Amino acid sequence: MLVPPSLEVFSCFVFYGVLLVVKMYVIAIITGQVRLRNKAFANPEDALRHGGLRFHREDLYVERCRRAHINDLENILPFLFLGSIYSMTAPSLAVARLHFLVFFAARVLHSVAYLCALPAPTRSLAYTVGQVPCVSMAVQILVAVAAYA
Amino acid sequence: MLVPPSLEVFSCFVFYGVLLVVKMYVIAIITGQVRLRNKAFANPEDALRHGGLRFHREDLYVERCRRAHINDLENILPFLFLGSIYSMTAPSLAVARLHFLVFFAARVLHSVAYLCALPAPTRSLAYTVGQVPCVSMAVQILVAVAAYA
Amino acid sequence: MLVPPSLEVFSCFVFYGVLLVVKMYVIAIITGQVRLRNKAFANPEDALRHGGLRFHREDLYVERCRRAHINDLENILPFLFLGSIYSMTAPSLAVARLHFLVFFAARVLHSVAYLCALPAPTRSLAYTVGQVPCVSMAVQILVAVAAYA
Repeated sequence: MLVPPSLEVFSCFVFYGVLLVVKMYVIAIITGQVRLRNKAFANPEDALRHGGLRFHREDLYVERCRRAHINDLENILPFLFLGSIYSMTAPSLAVARLHFLVFFAARVLHSVAYLCALPAPTRSLAYTVGQVPCVSMAVQILVAVAAYA
Repeated sequence: MLVPPSLEVFSCFVFYGVLLVVKMYVIAIITGQVRLRNKAFANPEDALRHGGLRFHREDLYVERCRRAHINDLENILPFLFLGSIYSMTAPSLAVARLHFLVFFAARVLHSVAYLCALPAPTRSLAYTVGQVPCVSMAVQILVAVAAYA
Repeated sequence: MLVPPSLEVFSCFVFYGVLLVVKMYVIAIITGQVRLRNKAFANPEDALRHGGLRFHREDLYVERCRRAHINDLENILPFLFLGSIYSMTAPSLAVARLHFLVFFAARVLHSVAYLCALPAPTRSLAYTVGQVPCVSMAVQILVAVAAYA
């Protein structure tokens, strides 16, 4: 059964959730800076403003930043949902914080591994470790609400 | 006016919402498995680990998985928002469950149609059917909060 | 500290949040219509239904719609999280509405600038203006929950 979340657990979730949103914003800023530095723009109107249509082109590192960002969309955004509902399953603060902290650390490492092109399987490992608390939360939520399906 | 959601309606929403998040995770896992089997990696560091830089390449089926996943981001993530707020508009459990169930079934069919490349318009039809409860929820929410805009 | 949101602030957030979700749906509809009109399909099964496999191809304007949509995923979806939590930081209605309204207006302008290919830096400016209330909300939330990290 879902219950109102404790202030401690929910605030802990919110803290790491907001930091991860900020982390996503940082990737967007990096992408924009790389576009300007490498002169590689996705839109002709941007290229025109920054030197000409020949800069309407793809760039390997911009594409890497894009993949890092989209992987964040695929994983951090579902975490924001799972974490808020998981807070309603009356977890202990210590266990809940462990879930949030492992996901947070794994996603920060994932971004670093992606942007710095660290040797495989660093990035995949970070992704997999980050999925563990997510699957754990998903299972606990499903157990909590299964009677209402 | 928005009111605290009934436990029954909210739990029913959470049940299908979490299942859809798990469904998205499954697509990510399939994508990774296809990358390994077809030897097609988005990053040179992954290709290097799995046979060499010549496997840093695109694959038609990997791209199909990617499109299925991104379509999920575009539709399932907004559903997670709409469904949680719609639960606060005091819907009857039967009507609310119908909204959630139709969306859930449509999105599962959408994924199957995408990954199996079922003949058109199966996938588009699944997408459209899935949008009906979403638009219905959006309209009911806007009616409920319009006085506060 | 987070507190239950006031009905006025939360409803105001929900109003603009749902309108932005609807705005994203409109971009999806436009993308589909452009695919049909320009005969450019991402999947062979769709092309087969609409004239033949030669229409399984990319289209410059379809790709532009896709970029507009993905930029929305990157910015509107995090706003839905930030706005709902920010409503729990006891902001005044006037200040909260200003945050939501600025983001809403900026994102509508962003979409118009993208789809109409308005001269740079209109779109980038709209993006940047939209990020201001988001960063402001993120900071206020972090201040509110920092004690619970």
